[in-house]
Amino acid sequence: MTSSNAASTQPGFPADPHYVRIFDTTLRDGEQSPGVALNHAQKLEIGHQLARLGVDIIEAGFPVASAGDLAGVQRIAREVHGPVIAALARAGRADIEAAARGVEAAARPRIHTFIATSPIHMEKKLRLPPEAVVEKAVQAVQYARTFVDDVEFSAEDATRSDTEFMIRIFRAAAQAGATTINVPDTVGYTTPEEIRALFSRLRAELPEHVVLSAHCHDDLGMAVANSIAAAEGGARQIECTVNGIGERAGNASLEEIVMAFHTRADRYGLSTGVQTRELYRASRLVSRLSGMPVQPNKAVVGDNAFAHESGIHQDGVLKARETYEIMNAELVGREAAVMVMGKHSGRAAFRQALADLGYGDLSEEKVQGLFGRFKDLADRKGQIYAEDIRALADSRTDVPQTYQLEAFQITSGMNVEPVAFVRLHTPGGSRSATAHGDGPVDAAFQAISDITGVQPELEKYRIQSVTQGDDALGEVSITVRHGEQYLSGVGVATDIVEASARAWLRVINMIEAGMGKEKVSAQVGTP
Amino acid sequence: MTSSNAASTQPGFPADPHYVRIFDTTLRDGEQSPGVALNHAQKLEIGHQLARLGVDIIEAGFPVASAGDLAGVQRIAREVHGPVIAALARAGRADIEAAARGVEAAARPRIHTFIATSPIHMEKKLRLPPEAVVEKAVQAVQYARTFVDDVEFSAEDATRSDTEFMIRIFRAAAQAGATTINVPDTVGYTTPEEIRALFSRLRAELPEHVVLSAHCHDDLGMAVANSIAAAEGGARQIECTVNGIGERAGNASLEEIVMAFHTRADRYGLSTGVQTRELYRASRLVSRLSGMPVQPNKAVVGDNAFAHESGIHQDGVLKARETYEIMNAELVGREAAVMVMGKHSGRAAFRQALADLGYGDLSEEKVQGLFGRFKDLADRKGQIYAEDIRALADSRTDVPQTYQLEAFQITSGMNVEPVAFVRLHTPGGSRSATAHGDGPVDAAFQAISDITGVQPELEKYRIQSVTQGDDALGEVSITVRHGEQYLSGVGVATDIVEASARAWLRVINMIEAGMGKEKVSAQVGTP
Repeated sequence: MTSSNAASTQPGFPADPHYVRIFDTTLRDGEQSPGVALNHAQKLEIGHQLARLGVDIIEAGFPVASAGDLAGVQRIAREVHGPVIAALARAGRADIEAAARGVEAAARPRIHTFIATSPIHMEKKLRLPPEAVVEKAVQAVQYARTFVDDVEFSAEDATRSDTEFMIRIFRAAAQAGATTINVPDTVGYTTPEEIRALFSRLRAELPEHVVLSAHCHDDLGMAVANSIAAAEGGARQIECTVNGIGERAGNASLEEIVMAFHTRADRYGLSTGVQTRELYRASRLVSRLSGMPVQPNKAVVGDNAFAHESGIHQDGVLKARETYEIMNAELVGREAAVMVMGKHSGRAAFRQALADLGYGDLSEEKVQGLFGRFKDLADRKGQIYAEDIRALADSRTDVPQTYQLEAFQITSGMNVEPVAFVRLHTPGGSRSATAHGDGPVDAAFQAISDITGVQPELEKYRIQSVTQGDDALGEVSITVRHGEQYLSGVGVATDIVEASARAWLRVINMIEAGMGKEKVSAQVGTP
Repeated sequence: MTSSNAASTQPGFPADPHYVRIFDTTLRDGEQSPGVALNHAQKLEIGHQLARLGVDIIEAGFPVASAGDLAGVQRIAREVHGPVIAALARAGRADIEAAARGVEAAARPRIHTFIATSPIHMEKKLRLPPEAVVEKAVQAVQYARTFVDDVEFSAEDATRSDTEFMIRIFRAAAQAGATTINVPDTVGYTTPEEIRALFSRLRAELPEHVVLSAHCHDDLGMAVANSIAAAEGGARQIECTVNGIGERAGNASLEEIVMAFHTRADRYGLSTGVQTRELYRASRLVSRLSGMPVQPNKAVVGDNAFAHESGIHQDGVLKARETYEIMNAELVGREAAVMVMGKHSGRAAFRQALADLGYGDLSEEKVQGLFGRFKDLADRKGQIYAEDIRALADSRTDVPQTYQLEAFQITSGMNVEPVAFVRLHTPGGSRSATAHGDGPVDAAFQAISDITGVQPELEKYRIQSVTQGDDALGEVSITVRHGEQYLSGVGVATDIVEASARAWLRVINMIEAGMGKEKVSAQVGTP
């Protein structure tokens, strides 16, 4: 629309000079992790949680990659309110037009366009001389500005680029109308000292109204420290992902950055708008839907991150909590007290437990459905913990139940061919099948595929025990390929074979409902 | 013995001023992770791999914690050659005597003694005035020097301590004979800028012959950057663990630190003695024996850490590998090429495959045992990948086979009570049992316990799929409690129920062989 001064075109951001904007790219860079494929409903569920978390910008996808990705971004732009919704685009007209279509329904849309600036990328990937790269960047920013007022420009592989050349291209991009300038450490190569100095230099050289941004990868384990050092040097936007998922070793971890600013406010004097109490829920949701487990020794959100949760009550902790704790579990939304319910707990208590865990917004129909599964589980397992309820509630993304599991039975053993019997409720009535396989899980998958006629290819299979006790709930996450489509499904049960069968059936129901998506190809190269 | 100049009492370390010593504490701080319990054989296996890896110092345990821990340290001291073997001790005579007994058989023994120096720890935990803390530190170092020439002193919670007080206590410890002075960031609180400045100051204030050391925890996600910043400030020893395991969010990750120094030698100009090609094997071994999984987006050793392993061959990578890769998979011991063997592969090919994967040192008897399992697996699964062979070889720690699995069969399903039949070869001949449970795994555990009469309590249960393909090997890691003892076992099979049963039986065989160990109590508080 207009090319007026950028500062006046970024409404809705706090004016505080010490405020650091959190740009979440879980749905774009995180979703490019190998083996991760989120469908629209899953992306939307994560998008809503990011809005609750209070991130400033959600990068929702890369619309030119596929029609499915475009539609996914459009849905986030339409339905997720609060944060700026951004879409990624290479520096070319088709990419920018797709990005503009992606975010047009958003109240606060952003187009994020990029081009590589390092010698190796310009020569080997783009095959363009530096002059032409600057020219393309300027044209891209100008074109993006014809669609939106909020345009971000990134120099891919910035940390391996010539600093003088970066200053030149960033100045040109700012003049062309870019309101945010992003510096990606695409290959995870930089160090805190180096990136702090780089940002100090850029801050001195670039117009004041432009917001500087850091985008760090974790190949050498320093993405969080690098992001923070960039902020010390003048960055006021940090690009990151929940649980640090992303290509290769992943991106900087949102929760670690936020908690570092929070815990060391004495040193940094910087703040974010993130509601820390939503961090754990965001972590669990992303882990569950992406199928990317979080290691127990992961900071902030790992199982062991808080000593007093581990069952080991250190002498020091008992004497004074601060001796070994610099933050507390409640602050990031982890219940210190374990809530226990049982088979005699009624609907009101269950609804209250859901509300306490942050699921107060579910429809009556959903609560009803969850309550039925809660009762089944309580019958089986006796005591129900907070994590059990989370596991049930988080698996609530609606998938039309074309097929439903009516009965199944498996037999396996040593020197015994594993066999499965499955009966499904299908649109044509009850149908059953038996099958054998390499193990009971494989046999169950085969029987389900025989009934439904849908035979996806298993790409990833992961099991985590998600709850406490001998009879813990097992959670199975699978990713499958079906033709050109990728789908992920989760199944939860005390019996891991049943959990696996439920995950497989869920994926098949998603295929039947056309909920699959083509994997965003990483071939185009992104920051 | 003597109190001669420290420099002359540290033989065996490179004299290069840019050499950073790697002090591995996987077996001490790593082993204190919640849910981890390594027995002597497992500790020894890790110790041998640390020696192959070329770490400078192995902290083998905390001998005063239990008789079992003392014996474990003694065994490492006796059998692992190359690195210095260190034992931890609080600043007291009993601790130091136990540590001295632990390392006395080592060619190069070290005693590592510590006391807390932060106001909160001195007041709330030690309940001692600063004067008394200095006095205890000096006495501890002096006493330790009567046993060994190589004494390390740590100030617990150093990063929350008064700097002037630290200088005072460190000077006193150095004068008393400490040859290494360690600065633990016990609660994971510091930042790179802060710790760099602290080490610069300490380096200027403390005698030249004393080696400065950093020990960082990862609560805010900055342990690696902090360790490296400490080295920039003058640290020449870094304390870390394989996979970054350790209490809460864990310790600084050895492999990330080593690869950062290696990859950014241009910037840091520092080197270590670590054989990078052994990193991946060390990571797999520690993950397997500790039961602590590594998340896929973990730097250096995660499944996705190298883009070209993910099956996504980026356009950029195809054009020039360096566009998206700053290190290559071979450098850290990950095979870029997937080795495939099959049921027709003979013993010679299998032995060659073992050697290629770094298992060239196995006895003929062990190779024979592994070959039998390899053939069974090949019959079942057709194609065998490098990871399959690793999984077999890494589970080779010898456990006396009091009980052996002869047959087992399980049946489970929806609305069906899961049942298991198990037959074991026992010292009294074949015995069998049936049992039911919450799921088929639970039922199988129960049947095995009914036969053996050993009923441990399940503390942790984890499953990872460790290999490729539809019929991937599942690896089950369990940790159990039996009276006061903790034990961990691993089972590998294509059928996850069978893998679980094998892990349970392994743990029971360990209990029968007296291989359990008491968990090191974290109550004493360690750096």
